Amino acid sequence: MGNRFFRKTGAGEIVKKLTVKAVMERSLICEGDRILIAVSGGKDSSVLAWALSCLRPALKINYELAAIHISADFNDSAGDTGSEGDDSCRGRASTGSDGCRENLSRMLEEWGVPFTDIFVPVVDRLKEGKKMNCYWCSTQRRTELLKYAVENGFNKIALGHHLDDIIETFFMNLCSKGTLSAMPILLKYRKYPVSLIRPLALLEEKQIIACAAEHDILKTACTCPYGQNSKRRDMRSRIADFAGGEDSGEIKRRILSALKTGERDYLSEE
Amino acid sequence: MGNRFFRKTGAGEIVKKLTVKAVMERSLICEGDRILIAVSGGKDSSVLAWALSCLRPALKINYELAAIHISADFNDSAGDTGSEGDDSCRGRASTGSDGCRENLSRMLEEWGVPFTDIFVPVVDRLKEGKKMNCYWCSTQRRTELLKYAVENGFNKIALGHHLDDIIETFFMNLCSKGTLSAMPILLKYRKYPVSLIRPLALLEEKQIIACAAEHDILKTACTCPYGQNSKRRDMRSRIADFAGGEDSGEIKRRILSALKTGERDYLSEE
Repeated sequence: MGNRFFRKTGAGEIVKKLTVKAVMERSLICEGDRILIAVSGGKDSSVLAWALSCLRPALKINYELAAIHISADFNDSAGDTGSEGDDSCRGRASTGSDGCRENLSRMLEEWGVPFTDIFVPVVDRLKEGKKMNCYWCSTQRRTELLKYAVENGFNKIALGHHLDDIIETFFMNLCSKGTLSAMPILLKYRKYPVSLIRPLALLEEKQIIACAAEHDILKTACTCPYGQNSKRRDMRSRIADFAGGEDSGEIKRRILSALKTGERDYLSEE
Repeated sequence: MGNRFFRKTGAGEIVKKLTVKAVMERSLICEGDRILIAVSGGKDSSVLAWALSCLRPALKINYELAAIHISADFNDSAGDTGSEGDDSCRGRASTGSDGCRENLSRMLEEWGVPFTDIFVPVVDRLKEGKKMNCYWCSTQRRTELLKYAVENGFNKIALGHHLDDIIETFFMNLCSKGTLSAMPILLKYRKYPVSLIRPLALLEEKQIIACAAEHDILKTACTCPYGQNSKRRDMRSRIADFAGGEDSGEIKRRILSALKTGERDYLSEE
């Protein structure tokens, strides 16, 4: 019987339920959509692929799925970036080892999600004298993702960011930059016939972790050597204390809801 | 020599400097303004009156000042409100005892600020069967304040809310109501030729406390028996941990600055 008998049950149901809620409330997916899921091998994007692959009946929407993995030319000796920059990858940009790709490919195949891997020479593209940094890597990969989507007729790109990512980004921008800014749950590109969606936006990381454990969704990422953003780690810890307690999920979802409505009542000048 | 020799020096200078900064950056006071300061007897509004009374040379603006104190018909046996409501008074709506009024009057006279006291029967005005609550009290007092200002030709009403009040209100609304909402630093009323200003908006409470101690600015309020909002107290404690550290003031001012600019970059839908 092993571990399976003692695993938390219902974790998968929670993920499915809150993914459906996000999709329905924000109209993230429409009939006939062709959705490209950006997978890194990390648990978040893998759980995203799993959830979207089994939610067609619950959503009562017909949509196509495919997954794309972007490998980069990192290596272990890449060393310090000298800059933390945009860390929306959260240090999980993949080095694209064969082992990673195989595991990922196998999992996606089990779920009926076609898989493609493309290679982007992020480091090689750096201009003379420039150092590698998260912002550069992120923009390069995002550009290629968008290009692939447009060229292959996908109208939606799904990313695996979750509630904690969004709340952390919001607080980091609020406290460090002094701006009201986070990650959009739905972003329509002006110049391209593509929208970005984040269907896991209502899920806390711990709920995704529990689901991944319950459904044997392996973490297969060979993670980026440019590592974890220490500011984000610090903020994560502060938020855990600030919003801590049994109702932390509710508090975070209320914050998310505030970001959506964009009510501007009595913020500053009238 | 007593305590004065050991008091923290410069607390008054900090208050003056950050009050000037708020006034100049947000254009809170203009040449010829007639400013009515709402004083409760609490340290915040008293420090506000002190600061505005001595800052004309620094601001190089001519303005008139007067102070108003609103007494209400509370008594100690008033008991529980049954509702926390709007607690922007922070439990310092004055019971208006003679002792309070005398102390306040004396201090304001020393600073050259004419003083008026008006009585508002907040409890008596309650409709049949209704219980006293902070929201009712607040709206009654605000209405009378506005009425007095308009009838007596004041174009500005100055309130003593500080940075911590604003940040707390912001977080309470964010986490409890799910809205982006705080206290405006400058609020122009649409229906009346009056604006509300909060010149202490850049100051943390501890800076005001230090200034009050340094300048013998007595707390004279006989405070409201409807007491302290426990949600606000809880939030104050959470914020102290969240934004804690040497740079807490800087973090809070950056949050304030975010509320001002109202940039809406990537909050939710495009």
